[in-house]
Amino acid sequence: MLSKNKLKYIQSLRLKKYRQRNNAFIVEGVKMVDELLQVGKLEIECICAIPSWIETYKPQSVLVKETLIPVNEKELKQLSNLKTPNQVLAVVKQADSIINFSSIEKSYNLYLDNIQDPGNLGTILRIADWFGIPNVICSPTCVEVYNPKVIQSSMGAFHRVHCMNEELEKITTSLPNLSILGAVLDATSIYTTNFPKAGLLVIGNESQGISINIKKLITHQISIPRYAKGGAESLNAAVATGIICAHIKSL
Amino acid sequence: MLSKNKLKYIQSLRLKKYRQRNNAFIVEGVKMVDELLQVGKLEIECICAIPSWIETYKPQSVLVKETLIPVNEKELKQLSNLKTPNQVLAVVKQADSIINFSSIEKSYNLYLDNIQDPGNLGTILRIADWFGIPNVICSPTCVEVYNPKVIQSSMGAFHRVHCMNEELEKITTSLPNLSILGAVLDATSIYTTNFPKAGLLVIGNESQGISINIKKLITHQISIPRYAKGGAESLNAAVATGIICAHIKSL
Repeated sequence: MLSKNKLKYIQSLRLKKYRQRNNAFIVEGVKMVDELLQVGKLEIECICAIPSWIETYKPQSVLVKETLIPVNEKELKQLSNLKTPNQVLAVVKQADSIINFSSIEKSYNLYLDNIQDPGNLGTILRIADWFGIPNVICSPTCVEVYNPKVIQSSMGAFHRVHCMNEELEKITTSLPNLSILGAVLDATSIYTTNFPKAGLLVIGNESQGISINIKKLITHQISIPRYAKGGAESLNAAVATGIICAHIKSL
Repeated sequence: MLSKNKLKYIQSLRLKKYRQRNNAFIVEGVKMVDELLQVGKLEIECICAIPSWIETYKPQSVLVKETLIPVNEKELKQLSNLKTPNQVLAVVKQADSIINFSSIEKSYNLYLDNIQDPGNLGTILRIADWFGIPNVICSPTCVEVYNPKVIQSSMGAFHRVHCMNEELEKITTSLPNLSILGAVLDATSIYTTNFPKAGLLVIGNESQGISINIKKLITHQISIPRYAKGGAESLNAAVATGIICAHIKSL
């Protein structure tokens, strides 16, 4: 049964403050929770589900015996962050996210400078997942990866892509030979750039682009060519990430 | 002064039904309204603005003399669809959107099959704008282009990209030799596809992909290669659009 305290606790996880205090976050919906159980890497605090979900998932119920809380539709609605709650919601422990510097040196990874839109961060995690990019490093000013909108729009990519917060300067100090590529307006076209074998691709904020402090650390400025007759000012940050990642991986 | 009737009318334009009945839509914020006035192509019904905006835009006020309604911050908040209203809001007449078949035959254009997310449609309009793609044709089931979230996320691209609704079958009947390219999973890689000189690129629905009726009309099935070790199921529809448009334009 869902206690009043539990309800209050789960609702509190809508706010970053309480997610950080409790080191927990929310995963919602049949598909997302299914993947959570299948991947089995993250520690589950509890699963709140309506009877139809519990019935369907009975074979797996050994996994969640201790932590399964049956709820009714009304209670699920009170707990949920979604407009249309979908049968089940899990409270999950946040994973440690320590940078593995040697993994960063070996391949292409992403550095996000002050990305603010949770949908963009989720979409960028999906891009990293699709293109086999192991690490997405966020500046400390980025929207939090455990924001419910990031988790839901990542479509499960947060299970497979290693996401962490770090200052770029700390990375370049530890890895002084690392190529830092920055997507900016009006630099060398990605189609004529001689790409290094590995590097960190920096994507800037949705409206301000890459910040001054981070621009200083960039070793390769690159651009997506524009074919417009005028007007178009920029591409969406996630779209730009997708175009550059697709191109680098195709080389 | 903002009359009660005007307030009610502008608020009603949040709903598709009233936007269609009145053939009007909303454009909000300093940057968007500035562009609206500069481009000057769309008929403006009225502009509601706070005193600071009116003061700044005085030189242009001849444009909006008849139609300028001074409002206070509280009234703007009542009118606005934004969380943080930004000084000004315009009510604009919808433009006619008739397909120019000869323009569709000559270059690459987009066909959106049942795109539901307004943010995705706005982002796709921005992509078309950036890559100089003149027409974005939406299936009649797509989210409406005059939805406030589409307009705001298009960042002004709706001024430059010709967007209309039409059944794909009507287009292929009129243009039987037109190449119809469809982005699907596990078809020929875009990097090995021999792209025709012109064509209509079909982008499918966010969760269902391209519908069966439209799949039948596709002449070239293409895919963005996946490099993941497993898990990643798809890319966001706008990201996929961006990757394919960037690649075609780079050829």
